[in-house]
Amino acid sequence: MKIDVLTLFPEMFTGVLGSSILKKAQEKQAVTIHVTNFRTFSDNKHQTVDDYPYGGGAGMVLKPQPIFDAVSHLKRQSTISNPRVILLCPQGEVFNQKKAETLSKEEHLIFICGHYEGYDERIRTHIVTDEISIGDYVLTGGELGAMVVIDSVVRLLEKVLGNHVSAKEDSHTTGRLEYPQYTRPADFRGMKVPDVLLSGNHQMIEEWRKMQSFLRTYTRRPDLLDLSCLTEEEQYWMKKFKLENGIDMT
Amino acid sequence: MKIDVLTLFPEMFTGVLGSSILKKAQEKQAVTIHVTNFRTFSDNKHQTVDDYPYGGGAGMVLKPQPIFDAVSHLKRQSTISNPRVILLCPQGEVFNQKKAETLSKEEHLIFICGHYEGYDERIRTHIVTDEISIGDYVLTGGELGAMVVIDSVVRLLEKVLGNHVSAKEDSHTTGRLEYPQYTRPADFRGMKVPDVLLSGNHQMIEEWRKMQSFLRTYTRRPDLLDLSCLTEEEQYWMKKFKLENGIDMT
Repeated sequence: MKIDVLTLFPEMFTGVLGSSILKKAQEKQAVTIHVTNFRTFSDNKHQTVDDYPYGGGAGMVLKPQPIFDAVSHLKRQSTISNPRVILLCPQGEVFNQKKAETLSKEEHLIFICGHYEGYDERIRTHIVTDEISIGDYVLTGGELGAMVVIDSVVRLLEKVLGNHVSAKEDSHTTGRLEYPQYTRPADFRGMKVPDVLLSGNHQMIEEWRKMQSFLRTYTRRPDLLDLSCLTEEEQYWMKKFKLENGIDMT
Repeated sequence: MKIDVLTLFPEMFTGVLGSSILKKAQEKQAVTIHVTNFRTFSDNKHQTVDDYPYGGGAGMVLKPQPIFDAVSHLKRQSTISNPRVILLCPQGEVFNQKKAETLSKEEHLIFICGHYEGYDERIRTHIVTDEISIGDYVLTGGELGAMVVIDSVVRLLEKVLGNHVSAKEDSHTTGRLEYPQYTRPADFRGMKVPDVLLSGNHQMIEEWRKMQSFLRTYTRRPDLLDLSCLTEEEQYWMKKFKLENGIDMT
């Protein structure tokens, strides 16, 4: 996979792209990532990239020319005819694991990151294929959003994670939040590990984990569950939980 | 505000904390941010921080001792008695702008970032005050999540943004997505700016923007709208939109 990032703050990416899984993925040549300052594409002698909004208002707006020309340049260098062009913005589709999986099947992704400013609407309507928001909160720019999307996509690429089980068992891949984990010591300053995990009975451990995973999802993120599609086991755990916690069953 | 980050990858933070608004906020002394490698708190001679999970399974689990001791150390240095201790994890409460506003009123925030591994459950139950997930997707570690929360919180602090209007007019603060923005030229390679924005009629511009803002929210993120609480104007725009697009009104 090839990834290009257009930003006015290339230095923001250095630490994240140079560490951990993203670093290893580049070393293994599973992905090549280039960060380009799109200011260098400005045809203005002062290399300006933004201007006042038509109709007035606070803040500046990114001009179409530098971004149009930067994207054209990257497309000419691309091995495929229509790379995805992703704009990070609060108005975009909310990012999730399914979208990460879709993007991980692409050959070339181009990310556009604005900063403080708005984007001239012609950028959205004429060159962008995907508008993405990583969540319902306001960030200073699109850079952190691009890093988030890149991290979640690259770790899904073949050969990137050493242990393929890891990616498949994650929360948000299974549809259930992960069960509680414990490691040594069994008694840490008086706080103990549940007996079942020390029992050596693998069937009981498996069942306890499934139940914890279900109940954690049910209590913390019921929006992730389709209550009409629960297994018999899950229906039983839910009823038991409601009874024990005095929740009205009607 | 004082922010502490506990991580095994301090170098990931350098670019983001050293640029743009986060850099300026630190220069203006609106916030001090310290990043600490919690491996230095391990009491083990090999400075290990993780171990195998009780009950078996893939992946490693962060041991309680280094994180308990790191947090105790930071709490002893704190000027307040009970700083918020935030764990970034997929099982957490989904982060949003309201949570950013709540956190921006605190004096001291401590972030714990795990990486690949799970967390020993005793960390969650005994020292963490807030478990936060920045969205329904899987990331390699909590580092990007911490940067996202820090960016969204710090930009809300007094004196950080030059223009206070900016923070208040953002999407997710007003409850409506932002209207389309345009800047010069009025005709860019045949793509034109809407006439109303060039009209100089401020009342018409204001109304067009409100309508665009509402319709963009209605078509892209209807989940953000409470349809029973629309203004008369909004009800009219919605009906008009449905009529024009042949959407069944029953």
